Amino acid sequence: MDYQEFFTSALERLQSERRYRVFADIERLAGRYPDAIWHSPAGPRPITVWCSNDYLGMGQNRDVTRAMVETAWRIGTGAGGTRNISGNSHAIVGLEIELADLHGKEAALVFTSGYVSNQTGISTLAKLIPNCLILSDALNHNSMIEGVRQSGCEKAIFRHNDLDHLEELLRAAGDRPKLIAFESVYSMDGDISPIHAICDLAERYGAMTYLDEVHAVGMYGPRGGGIAEREGAMHRIDVIEGTLGKAFGVMGGYIAATRAIIDAVRSFAPGFIFTTALPPAVAAAATASVRHLKASAAERQKQQRQVARTKSVLSAAGLPLLDTVTHIVPVMVGDAEACKAASDRLLDKHGIYIQPINYPTVPRGTERLRITPGPFHTDAHVDSLARALVEVWTALNLPLASKIAAAE
Amino acid sequence: MDYQEFFTSALERLQSERRYRVFADIERLAGRYPDAIWHSPAGPRPITVWCSNDYLGMGQNRDVTRAMVETAWRIGTGAGGTRNISGNSHAIVGLEIELADLHGKEAALVFTSGYVSNQTGISTLAKLIPNCLILSDALNHNSMIEGVRQSGCEKAIFRHNDLDHLEELLRAAGDRPKLIAFESVYSMDGDISPIHAICDLAERYGAMTYLDEVHAVGMYGPRGGGIAEREGAMHRIDVIEGTLGKAFGVMGGYIAATRAIIDAVRSFAPGFIFTTALPPAVAAAATASVRHLKASAAERQKQQRQVARTKSVLSAAGLPLLDTVTHIVPVMVGDAEACKAASDRLLDKHGIYIQPINYPTVPRGTERLRITPGPFHTDAHVDSLARALVEVWTALNLPLASKIAAAE
Repeated sequence: MDYQEFFTSALERLQSERRYRVFADIERLAGRYPDAIWHSPAGPRPITVWCSNDYLGMGQNRDVTRAMVETAWRIGTGAGGTRNISGNSHAIVGLEIELADLHGKEAALVFTSGYVSNQTGISTLAKLIPNCLILSDALNHNSMIEGVRQSGCEKAIFRHNDLDHLEELLRAAGDRPKLIAFESVYSMDGDISPIHAICDLAERYGAMTYLDEVHAVGMYGPRGGGIAEREGAMHRIDVIEGTLGKAFGVMGGYIAATRAIIDAVRSFAPGFIFTTALPPAVAAAATASVRHLKASAAERQKQQRQVARTKSVLSAAGLPLLDTVTHIVPVMVGDAEACKAASDRLLDKHGIYIQPINYPTVPRGTERLRITPGPFHTDAHVDSLARALVEVWTALNLPLASKIAAAE
Repeated sequence: MDYQEFFTSALERLQSERRYRVFADIERLAGRYPDAIWHSPAGPRPITVWCSNDYLGMGQNRDVTRAMVETAWRIGTGAGGTRNISGNSHAIVGLEIELADLHGKEAALVFTSGYVSNQTGISTLAKLIPNCLILSDALNHNSMIEGVRQSGCEKAIFRHNDLDHLEELLRAAGDRPKLIAFESVYSMDGDISPIHAICDLAERYGAMTYLDEVHAVGMYGPRGGGIAEREGAMHRIDVIEGTLGKAFGVMGGYIAATRAIIDAVRSFAPGFIFTTALPPAVAAAATASVRHLKASAAERQKQQRQVARTKSVLSAAGLPLLDTVTHIVPVMVGDAEACKAASDRLLDKHGIYIQPINYPTVPRGTERLRITPGPFHTDAHVDSLARALVEVWTALNLPLASKIAAAE
């Protein structure tokens, strides 16, 4: 058996489909976000990052860093065990109290990542409910899909944000137990779900609700509780899932719910039970970040302002933006190779880093550059971005917004 | 539908089976390991931790902490994205080079945990190999079992460390592709696998090998490469999996292998692709720890000395130890309720923290206290432990070693 051959040929397939990914080696600089260093093959070069999921730049917040640093010196660098076997630090207990409060829930449970939260959270909950049918939005993130798959439960996929289709499936399911799994902000298209309307259906047909707010927590709602907080819908959602690795600028994921639900996941989820806990220093940094964004709206307001300005400047320059109601600004390319070429040229020629988003992250034919303006992108950054994109679009002969509109 | 009821009744089942777990709220103190604070219901109390998986106390190593702290101030607290989308930090690239070197492999890939490394590493590799049969040791960790399950491949379980049974299964499989998944140190019984003999079989029958060294890296081998390094077998193993959260004292997991294997997992594993990268500060701390333990054998020697002393003192006191060849010292109880009672009494009366290990972590009837002596447990710590265990064994009327032997 030549095992190397299997792997080599799998990689060749990726190359031939232009789906082989090269990771840019990036060194961010605290206090200078979004500026960073790119360790290019030819040596280090200054760049501006326009595709970070550290949406509010909290990763360079001095209170957050100080919490990590002080805790590391006081406690050490690791947790030293699973939550059950010596790894249940005072810091992580405090973080869970903070997160339960953020979402107005009785309890919360922290995982090593948002991915694991969804994967193990959904699969554990659905398994515990006898004969559970999972109703899952067609555009749910891979981590939710894996959670559904691992549950072994029957699933029904409803068309993205399509209430009629969801209702049809709910009605057809009869009175068996049901779990509706969906997101608030869909990260690639930047659209949001009709949370209240989905909760109405859940109530009418007796379904539980599981809402992924990873691209919303910290950024929406008066205390950063997410879209559900902004819409006054938090109390209607059974399980809210979030991340500490995006707007909160650290790492880890969590779910918040009633005490019974949290205790059940805590007690039955292998992906939680058998894994080393988040280090106290990481938990302390996340706690500081959550607390900061509960009290401060400044980061959210600056982000919203720079998002609006970016959309307006890029639109005025004729670039083909996908219209969104969130902080996510997709510029459409529609071809994997052109998307990669545009990204490469932006980095090489303009020092602007925006990773190409290709299949399987988005459907083929909808390849894009996904731009995430934050509070630390200045007006000058936005203007440079627009100039660079126009140069790249012109040089590569990519379609502008007017041409796309004209062709329709 | 009363969903709360499902979860509440699931929890009641756990309670009635004495399997409900209560996490002790622990605050470790850097520079004073293994001493710590227990935030008990009655207030904070000093304790000594005897069940940490921070086996060498590297979590309080000043160079490791300094690496975390300096990187946090310089770069920030988080990675800011997946590896592909702006989260590929210079620090994590450096860590992977260090880990590849540790195991004498071409490349390495870092995950957010050892659990995820196994789960996504095994499932991705096995899926890529057409018609792969996975041969899995009966005592493999839950994370490997989940990896096997998620691969969707056919599996064959061989009796724990049983070479004849493994050979029987390999022979029966014919010439289809095969992956043998096993561990070096089994964490609950503290025994080790016959690595060379398994590699002999793998070569004879054309199987790939996947070795979990999470309870060995840092602690065995001249540079802390694990049992495979100590036995001169690293080059014979196709994939070595390890953790940064136990002997290295930080968090995260990894695999090391050929460039093609690593690149395939990097390119195809959803649990890797769609998750936020480890923070640069965490990666830098892990790098410092791996480097330190490559060069320094002092921690390993002190650990071995204190392990030997603990075994000898507890044995002399008549306590029923499971005989092991590693740093893991199980004291057998054999009953879930008694095991919990012994652990509670140790903590309440003696300030000694050893979590009870019950089903499903170990089979019913083999419940135990699992003790992990480290380089920072002094001789006085060991003597106190022995006195406390004897008091508890006497008070609870638990069987001593001589009585167990007499009953056999």
